Amino acid sequence: MKVLAILYNGYTAAEEEPRLLGTVENKLGIEEWLTSQGHELIVSSDKEGAESDFQKHIVDAEVLITTPFHPGYLTREVMEKAKNLKICITAGVGSDHIDLNAAVERKIQVLEVSGSNVVSVAEHVVMSILLLVRNFIPAHEMIERGDWQVSDVARNAFDLEGKVVGTIGAGRIGYRVLQRLLPFDCKELLYYDYAPLPAAAAEAVKARRVEDLKEFVSQCDVVTVNCPLHEGTRGLVNKELLKHFKKGAWLVNTARGAICDKDDVAEALKEGIINGYSGDVWNVQPAPKDHAWRTMKNPLGAGNGMARYANGTRSILENYLTDKPQEPQNIIVGLGKYETKAYGQR
Amino acid sequence: MKVLAILYNGYTAAEEEPRLLGTVENKLGIEEWLTSQGHELIVSSDKEGAESDFQKHIVDAEVLITTPFHPGYLTREVMEKAKNLKICITAGVGSDHIDLNAAVERKIQVLEVSGSNVVSVAEHVVMSILLLVRNFIPAHEMIERGDWQVSDVARNAFDLEGKVVGTIGAGRIGYRVLQRLLPFDCKELLYYDYAPLPAAAAEAVKARRVEDLKEFVSQCDVVTVNCPLHEGTRGLVNKELLKHFKKGAWLVNTARGAICDKDDVAEALKEGIINGYSGDVWNVQPAPKDHAWRTMKNPLGAGNGMARYANGTRSILENYLTDKPQEPQNIIVGLGKYETKAYGQR
Repeated sequence: MKVLAILYNGYTAAEEEPRLLGTVENKLGIEEWLTSQGHELIVSSDKEGAESDFQKHIVDAEVLITTPFHPGYLTREVMEKAKNLKICITAGVGSDHIDLNAAVERKIQVLEVSGSNVVSVAEHVVMSILLLVRNFIPAHEMIERGDWQVSDVARNAFDLEGKVVGTIGAGRIGYRVLQRLLPFDCKELLYYDYAPLPAAAAEAVKARRVEDLKEFVSQCDVVTVNCPLHEGTRGLVNKELLKHFKKGAWLVNTARGAICDKDDVAEALKEGIINGYSGDVWNVQPAPKDHAWRTMKNPLGAGNGMARYANGTRSILENYLTDKPQEPQNIIVGLGKYETKAYGQR
Repeated sequence: MKVLAILYNGYTAAEEEPRLLGTVENKLGIEEWLTSQGHELIVSSDKEGAESDFQKHIVDAEVLITTPFHPGYLTREVMEKAKNLKICITAGVGSDHIDLNAAVERKIQVLEVSGSNVVSVAEHVVMSILLLVRNFIPAHEMIERGDWQVSDVARNAFDLEGKVVGTIGAGRIGYRVLQRLLPFDCKELLYYDYAPLPAAAAEAVKARRVEDLKEFVSQCDVVTVNCPLHEGTRGLVNKELLKHFKKGAWLVNTARGAICDKDDVAEALKEGIINGYSGDVWNVQPAPKDHAWRTMKNPLGAGNGMARYANGTRSILENYLTDKPQEPQNIIVGLGKYETKAYGQR
C-alpha cells in the first residue's frame, strides 16, 4: 500500500525536537510502524502545481494524509488522476482542502482527527479577543522600539467586561469559547448557528441565539468565527455583511481564512468599520508574503479605563474639600496611621 | 488651595480624544470644577530632579495628585520640603511612589481610587498568560515579516489546559484572575497570600493555598504577581527565588516592576530557567530606553498540540489497515456519503 503524506518542513526545529511530529522530518511518527508492515510512505512538502510531489504521487497512492496548516489541495481535477485513492486523512481538523462532493461521488472516504484542536483553538480565540480589545500589539511594539507614549495606546484600549461577544458557530469550539468567556462579565454572549444549543447548554453559558446573521453582527462588539468552511460559509464575512457590523467592532477568525473575504476585511479595517482583526488562518496556506492581513493596521478610537480613575480622583478631592468622610477602601494612609493591610502592615 | 497634578503628556492623542483624562492636556477633567471654586490647579509632566515642576510646586501645594503610570515620586526628602501638603491622591491604584511611613509620621493622608483597575488588570493577566503559553509574539512577528515557518513557533506553543497556574496575592485582582482562569481546565490553581481566602471563595475558584513561597513557585507552570509593592515584596522575585521555579515556567507581572528584580529576571529568561516573561509595569516609569525587559527574548522548548493529531492520524490509519470501524465523530465522508452535518449538509 502506498501512503502519501503532504506535511510542512520543520528544518532545524524539527530535527532538534522530535515532538514536532507534523513535519516532513518527523513524518507524524508513523514511518517505522508503516514500513515495518511492508507499506510505502512518501512524505513531501512539495504540493503546488502539476510537477509537484503531491500530484506526482497522488496518481497511485491509496492513502493521502495532509495537515490543515500546509494542505495538499485535493480538487476534483487532481482526484481524477488519483485512481487508487481510497481514503484521505486530515491530520488535524477541517477537510475543506478536499472537494468533498467529488469524494462522495468517487467513494473516497474523508476522515479527520476530530476534537484534536478544540481546546487549543478556543484558548486562541479568547487570547485574540483580549489582545484586540485591550490594544496589546501597539503597546508591545511601542515598548520594543524604546518609546513610552501611554496615551497613544490607551486611546484604543478597552476592557472586555461589558462588551457583547458573539460566535458564528456554537459547536465544539464555539461553545468552549463561550464557556471561557463566561467569567469575564461580558454584557451579553450571543451565538449564530443553524441549530439552537440544547437549553441547558445555552443556560450554562448564558448565551442567546440570534437567528438572522445581519441582526447578529449588528449587536456584537466582538465577532468570533468558529464554523467550518464549506459552500455556505465561503466569503460569509464580506463587504455586504461588514456593513451591518457595529462601528468599531473587533473580528476574530481562527476557523478558515476563506470564510472572511481578504480584501473586504482589509478595507473595513482601513476605513474604521472594524477596529481590529485577529486570525491564524489564511486562504491559501502558506500565505503569500504580500497577503494584506500580514501587516494591516487599525485606526484609532478611545479607551474606557481612564474615566473610572479620573472620576474617582475628583470624588476623593470633593470629599476632602467639603470635609466629607472618604470611602474606607480608598484610604491607604489616614491621619497619622495606615488604614490598609495591603502595603505590608499586618 | 493649591492642587498639584503630575500627569503624563498625551500630545496629539489627548487633544483629539478628550476621554484621555489622565493626561496633562485633559487634566483629569477637574480643571473647570476646581478653578471655579477659586482653587489653583497646576498640571505638569515634569517630575524628575530638583528643578522639576514637581519639586518646585510641591513646596506649597496642599494636594498632590499623580498617576501610577507616570508618578511623581514623593520620597521622605521631597516630603520635607512640602510644608503645606495634607493629602496625596493616586489617580489609579498603587501608592508605592509615596514613602508611606513618612506620610504616617507627617499626618499626610494617602488615598487611591481603589478598585478602579481590578478588572482591567485581571483581564490583562489572563491575556498575558495565554500569549506566553501559546507563544503568540514570535508567531505574530513571523507573520509580519513575511515568513511562514510553523515549526519555529509550534515548538514552544502549548495549551493552558492542564497547566498549574499560581497567583502571588489573591486579593481583588488575584482573585479575579482565578475566577477567569477557572473554565480553562488548568491542572490546578494555586495562590500564595499572607491570609487564606474564605473557604467558600477558595472553593468557588477551586484554588489551593501554598504557604511557603519557594514551595509555591516550584509547583507552578505559570506564576502571576498580583500583590502590592511594599518593603516586604520589593525584589521578591529574585535570583534566589527563581532557582525554585519549575524549569521553563512563565512569569507574568502586572503589579509593580520593582517586585521582580530586573536583571535576575532577564538572566533567568536568557538561561532558560523561565520560558517567558510578560508585564506592563516597570521600575521606574517611564522605563529607560535600554531597560532589559523591553527587548528580551525567550529560548525555545517544544509544543504539545501535535501529539494529539499525529496519534489520531495513526489511529485512523490503523483502523483502515485492519478493517476496523472508524470513530464516528472523525468521519467527514464515509463510503459514498457525507457522515457529518458540519460541512453544510443539513
